[in-house]
Amino acid sequence: MALTIIKGTILSASALGKLDVTPGGYLVAEEGIITGVYPVLPEQFSGAPVEDFGDALILQSFADLHLHAPQYPMLGMGMDLPLLDWLNAYAFPTEARFADTDYARDVYRRLARELVENGTTRVCMFSSLHRPATLILMEKLEKAGVTGYVGKVNMDRNNVPGLLEETTEESRRETLQWLEACTSFPHIKPMLTPRFIPSCSEELLAFLGRLAAERNLPIQSHLSENQAEVELVSSLHPDCAQYWEAYAKYGLWNERTVMAHCVWSDERERQAMKEAGVTVVHCADSNQNICSGVAPVRTMLQEGLRVALGSDIAGGDHLHMFDVVAASIRASKARRILDGWETDFLTVPEGWYLGTSAGAAFFGDAPGFAPGNPLHAIALADDSLPCPHPLTAAERLERCVYTRQQGAIRAVWSAGRKVYSGT
Amino acid sequence: MALTIIKGTILSASALGKLDVTPGGYLVAEEGIITGVYPVLPEQFSGAPVEDFGDALILQSFADLHLHAPQYPMLGMGMDLPLLDWLNAYAFPTEARFADTDYARDVYRRLARELVENGTTRVCMFSSLHRPATLILMEKLEKAGVTGYVGKVNMDRNNVPGLLEETTEESRRETLQWLEACTSFPHIKPMLTPRFIPSCSEELLAFLGRLAAERNLPIQSHLSENQAEVELVSSLHPDCAQYWEAYAKYGLWNERTVMAHCVWSDERERQAMKEAGVTVVHCADSNQNICSGVAPVRTMLQEGLRVALGSDIAGGDHLHMFDVVAASIRASKARRILDGWETDFLTVPEGWYLGTSAGAAFFGDAPGFAPGNPLHAIALADDSLPCPHPLTAAERLERCVYTRQQGAIRAVWSAGRKVYSGT
Repeated sequence: MALTIIKGTILSASALGKLDVTPGGYLVAEEGIITGVYPVLPEQFSGAPVEDFGDALILQSFADLHLHAPQYPMLGMGMDLPLLDWLNAYAFPTEARFADTDYARDVYRRLARELVENGTTRVCMFSSLHRPATLILMEKLEKAGVTGYVGKVNMDRNNVPGLLEETTEESRRETLQWLEACTSFPHIKPMLTPRFIPSCSEELLAFLGRLAAERNLPIQSHLSENQAEVELVSSLHPDCAQYWEAYAKYGLWNERTVMAHCVWSDERERQAMKEAGVTVVHCADSNQNICSGVAPVRTMLQEGLRVALGSDIAGGDHLHMFDVVAASIRASKARRILDGWETDFLTVPEGWYLGTSAGAAFFGDAPGFAPGNPLHAIALADDSLPCPHPLTAAERLERCVYTRQQGAIRAVWSAGRKVYSGT
Repeated sequence: MALTIIKGTILSASALGKLDVTPGGYLVAEEGIITGVYPVLPEQFSGAPVEDFGDALILQSFADLHLHAPQYPMLGMGMDLPLLDWLNAYAFPTEARFADTDYARDVYRRLARELVENGTTRVCMFSSLHRPATLILMEKLEKAGVTGYVGKVNMDRNNVPGLLEETTEESRRETLQWLEACTSFPHIKPMLTPRFIPSCSEELLAFLGRLAAERNLPIQSHLSENQAEVELVSSLHPDCAQYWEAYAKYGLWNERTVMAHCVWSDERERQAMKEAGVTVVHCADSNQNICSGVAPVRTMLQEGLRVALGSDIAGGDHLHMFDVVAASIRASKARRILDGWETDFLTVPEGWYLGTSAGAAFFGDAPGFAPGNPLHAIALADDSLPCPHPLTAAERLERCVYTRQQGAIRAVWSAGRKVYSGT
């Protein structure tokens, strides 16, 4: 993989709301690291093999910063149920099946393949509480070419007796064993994953906080998803004025933390995220499906928070990030209506930035196809639809977002490697 | 087509929120008219050929009661623009291209095929103002197997000079010539289509109202889509206390009328719809994309209004009605949030009813696969996804709605004829 040269209509989100376009351009990576985007191939590369995708769009691949791998089999189900019934009827029994490693192997192989085929190459992902299944998940993602973080879920309180449970001691022991066992994956790394505050004892939270500090591990969890949850946390941690403080108290609140949802985070909680450098993961369809609310994403962006996107399957009903970007834009319009037309909606370039560059930032990338970034890209042939007029690259991108272009991805690169070739 | 016997998991929406399921059942039609759904094939049919779809779902096909055929080439484009800019930059120039009959032939053939392949067999559809293209559209729909109504658009006021315009006289003349020319299609019939009140002079509205009465023609238009439009109508028709009265005044308001959107229809306007028997066409994604608002569908249903669904391409970004059903459910959850959690969202069976039986009611059908209805059905193989547990037919339907099952339709019947066979 010494030298990769990809030719096409190169489009990337170099800032929130800004698209850089290089028609007939060359995206070059050396040893898997982007060295530049060029309108004309520099002389130093002349004679080198070029992968020519003609007029196809060459886009950044997606970062999905919140999804529950063991809920993949229940995608699009139980959406008429209230949250608690949905958890009991669908989420918990489905997750419990991952005690079966054969089942895990089968499902996670499919999930990993579907991610890559649809252009998601970076994830922050919840597994279940099962150590063996979590290792299988990491193995399947690694093999398929997905990169990022996976967490064995910790949940020693309010769990599901006989179905999905672990004691505090089991949770600690299994976490430590999992961390020892998962060191060999080059592209998939561990992430500490307390399910959410109500699922974890103070002892367990304190253990995870110490572990995060000692081993410099990233952290993922849920925050202020719905109002009942916020009240529950308040009753469990009366010493915390706000939900986030229950994470902060135990050392689970820093610039390596991603927090899903944050629908009900008020100005003070948002300020705490900004100060700590926490990344908010906006999960638009999930929040709407479960009637949690609509997160104030525009406000968060104006306040300077880090915001990325998550599919949140299976509260979300779409794994594909084209859908997730469109859902975020749609949700921002619902938010605009909720706000009496006072907040601006997300534009397509803004939504695109959140689904690509903003997520990649958590992994240390600069926005867009910046030199120094590992090569994460998609080649997308979007020529199957009728056109009203010759389209600009930005118009083509918008059409891809809204029409999803299922099956139109021709190639995917992840961390420099070509991990998918379509037909 | 004397006798059709379809075997599978037969599921239909026999009332709002109610699903009738007959596993391993037989759906029988004679001369294209449904005679019954049977758990066991009645003896009188023994020996007759059965189309056995195994465990596949046999569903009602969809009715899409509001869409703009000439906006099909601009699907998923311009969604960041305010309504007026979107019309000027996309909708009007795109519609204007249908002065070219070759272009119309190409686009409408694709549109008709895509409708049928995705299970939409009944439509109320806007064409453009062009008579020849409208006839081509009707011909292509007829040929593909779509049934229902198409309207040449009337717009003699506030039109687009040099691009999309007709005088009052031209509008009358072209309408009459179109009505004469389109009598030969057995399944596609004309529908009077004043674009909306601001696009039509009083003289033209009066002409269309007389024509509707004289020839017993159905009527389609737009109503109370956004607030600026409502105010504009009020200034154009100061004698009308509300928008709908501008239709009623000219005889365009009766039980053969479908009105798209009705986002801002208040209790009095809704009561007028109920009394006249007007059908509301809810276009959830379009209303959200263009930031019109969220129609109070639950309230309309509780008040006893007739409500069906429309894709409203290209304000809506999905032609496929699985998407449109999901969008309506999602919008009802946004509405619930807007209403401070006081209104119930649409359940999946309710959304499904609106996309099938409620739309079919406009064509005179009883709900579900009732005996006497023309056969409009889909056979859908939904076995490609991993399952968390053995699924009920209702769970399978929900999963199809949310995951769209693109490409999973195996066969479509329309007005008794098999119009599509998938692979």
